[in-house]
Order: sequence, then C-alpha cells, then structure tokens
Amino acid sequence: MKDFPSQLLEDAVTAFTSLPGIGRKSAFRMTLHLLRQGKTQTEQFLQALTMLNEKVQYCECCHNISDTPLCEICSDSRRDHSTICVVESIKEVLLIENTSHFHGVYHVLGGLISPMNGISPTNLQIDSLVQRVVKGGINEIILALSPNIEGETTAFYIFRKLRDYNIRITTLAQGVSVGDDLEYADEVTLGRAIENRINYK
Amino acid sequence: MKDFPSQLLEDAVTAFTSLPGIGRKSAFRMTLHLLRQGKTQTEQFLQALTMLNEKVQYCECCHNISDTPLCEICSDSRRDHSTICVVESIKEVLLIENTSHFHGVYHVLGGLISPMNGISPTNLQIDSLVQRVVKGGINEIILALSPNIEGETTAFYIFRKLRDYNIRITTLAQGVSVGDDLEYADEVTLGRAIENRINYK
Repeated sequence: MKDFPSQLLEDAVTAFTSLPGIGRKSAFRMTLHLLRQGKTQTEQFLQALTMLNEKVQYCECCHNISDTPLCEICSDSRRDHSTICVVESIKEVLLIENTSHFHGVYHVLGGLISPMNGISPTNLQIDSLVQRVVKGGINEIILALSPNIEGETTAFYIFRKLRDYNIRITTLAQGVSVGDDLEYADEVTLGRAIENRINYK
Repeated sequence: MKDFPSQLLEDAVTAFTSLPGIGRKSAFRMTLHLLRQGKTQTEQFLQALTMLNEKVQYCECCHNISDTPLCEICSDSRRDHSTICVVESIKEVLLIENTSHFHGVYHVLGGLISPMNGISPTNLQIDSLVQRVVKGGINEIILALSPNIEGETTAFYIFRKLRDYNIRITTLAQGVSVGDDLEYADEVTLGRAIENRINYK
C-alpha cells in the first residue's frame, strides 16, 4: 500500500499494526472504521483502553487481574486455598477456569523465564509464591506451565525453590489429546503417554 | 469465554470487538498485549489514535483526508484538474492511486446513498461536487463507485444532478477480471463484458 496522504493516518495505522496478528491492511480497515464512526464513539473506544491502562490492578495475593485488592477467586471461601495452580498469565487462569476442573487458587507468574528475551526469575512473581508457601497452609503446588523450553525451565526453577518445603509439587499430565487420532500425535507426546500410562477403569 | 475477573478488562475487550473483523478471542489477545507491553507503550498507541480522532482534517476541495487545508493531490499542479474521479471514501482514492492509471483529481463523497442505513444525498459531499462543476474548468466526471445497488443509486443521482452541464460523465468499465477464468465470471458481468466489447488491437 502506497504512502498515506496524512501523517496522522499513517501514525494511527502503524499503531494498529503493533497489535498481535494485525497487518497493514487490517490496520487501515480499523483506522477507517474509527474515522467513519465519528468522534464520540472513537472517544468511548479510546476511553475504555485508557481506563484499563491507567487503572488496572492486580490481586495482592495471586497477581491475577482484579478490580479489588484481593481477586474474586482469592476471596472466595468455597475454594481450596491449600492448592495453588501456578500459571504464566491471566490467560491461563481463564482457560483453566473454563474447564471447571480446578477448585483451588492461582498464582500468576507474569511470564516465563527466558534468557533469550531477557526475562530472569526476578522479573517474575516467584518470590511471592515462595512467601505464600513459607506462610503455611499449602498442601500442593500445581505447575501448570506450557510444555516448552521456557515453561520447563521455569517449572524446574520453582521446583528447586520449593522442594525442601513439605508440600506436594505436581505438573499437568502429558499425553495424547482427547479426540485426537494417534496417527497425528508427535513421538515425544506419545512416548510420555506410554510412560505415564494409567489404569483402565 | 467466561466472564473476566475485571470490569476494566471486560470493557477493553468489548471496545476491541467493535473493530471490524475482531472477535472476542482476538480482542482478548490484543488487550493482553497492551497489558504486557507496559504503560508507556500503550500510551503511545492510544496517543496516535487520539491525535487522529481529534486533529483529522479533510481537504477543502476533494474531502480526502489531509494534514493541510488543500490535499497533496489537489495542490499538485502536474495533475489534470479538469478530470474529477468521484469515489466513496479515502480507501478508493488509495486503491486508484495504487494503479498509477489516473492523473486527474478526486472527489470523496464520504459514503453512498443508502436509505436502508439512513444515508441520504444530503449526508454526502454531492452539493460540493456540483459546486466544483458550476465553478467551471471541468471536462469529465468519472463515477468510480462500487457496482452494487448503493453505488448505482448514487451514480444515477449524481448523473441527474450533472447531466445539464456540458461535461462528459463516465463510469468504470465493467467486464471480466484480468487473469480470471471465464468459467468463474458471473452471468451479469459476462453479459456486460459482451455488450461493452472493445476492438481487439
């Protein structure tokens, strides 16, 4: 696409392309949409994003996004506060909540250890996780991190920090996906599925 | 996707879903991206869009978007100011400029007549087009509007307004697409391509 006739337009399109999955064509379509819908509606759009950027708060305990100092999950007495599920970001909290298979509480790390991207353990909420364990009342830590290099590095780092405390440390089961064809499962996954086989009930 | 743990997050995601082609999942991914990249970068992102919303200007003559009172095309003396290409929006200006086949000037209507969407001729820049013709110096008006009901209604409306002035009024050639297989051309298009056949050179 050729140069735009306006620097303001160019800047707005460039801003949209910074969003994940948005190319120049989509960004231009979005910008045109903002121009077409009129000033007031665009102001409302920008207001919602500005409010989030300025007022966003995180739960003091689990670091999940929250409008209150303690998030809904941490302040829910019906949940099992002795089981902490450690996740990378708030996205995984929502994913696991959607399964309705977990009734404990969370701990959001805010990323994974990644020397390539300059993310060290001190950039993550690992110390505050250790503090929660030190405070007591924790029976189990579930390391629900992605099964890739960063996820496994982070899981191992946390495991070493916590192994001397008398708690159970678990991780997600690895195996074939439900509904998948065995033919398409990769070797590593299939190998772990055999290794960690379970009793047929 | 379940309810979000924060109203601010919910509002931001809803704001993104108002953009064309953005569903709830993509909107959530974009919101997470803003949260992750930090306050300053999100401020820059919002600043670019706010500037466009508040400071956007349109060319006094052709109504194309422009940072100056008269746009680059209208103020370019090398262009043919006696030929006006009438288009729906600034998107079509860019599309036609990309072809490098047009050296005249433009007139941006700002939409098409559409009673269904409550857009009447008075909502569009039709009067100012007539004014440009009345002022004189115009030889040809090219009606480069989409070949659909709204486009054809608008073209006919403009044609009736301008037919009494001594100018040539043309429209885009309709025919088979270059590189297309005849098998896949629709009947109406193929019919018009035969009707408006041209000499083989």
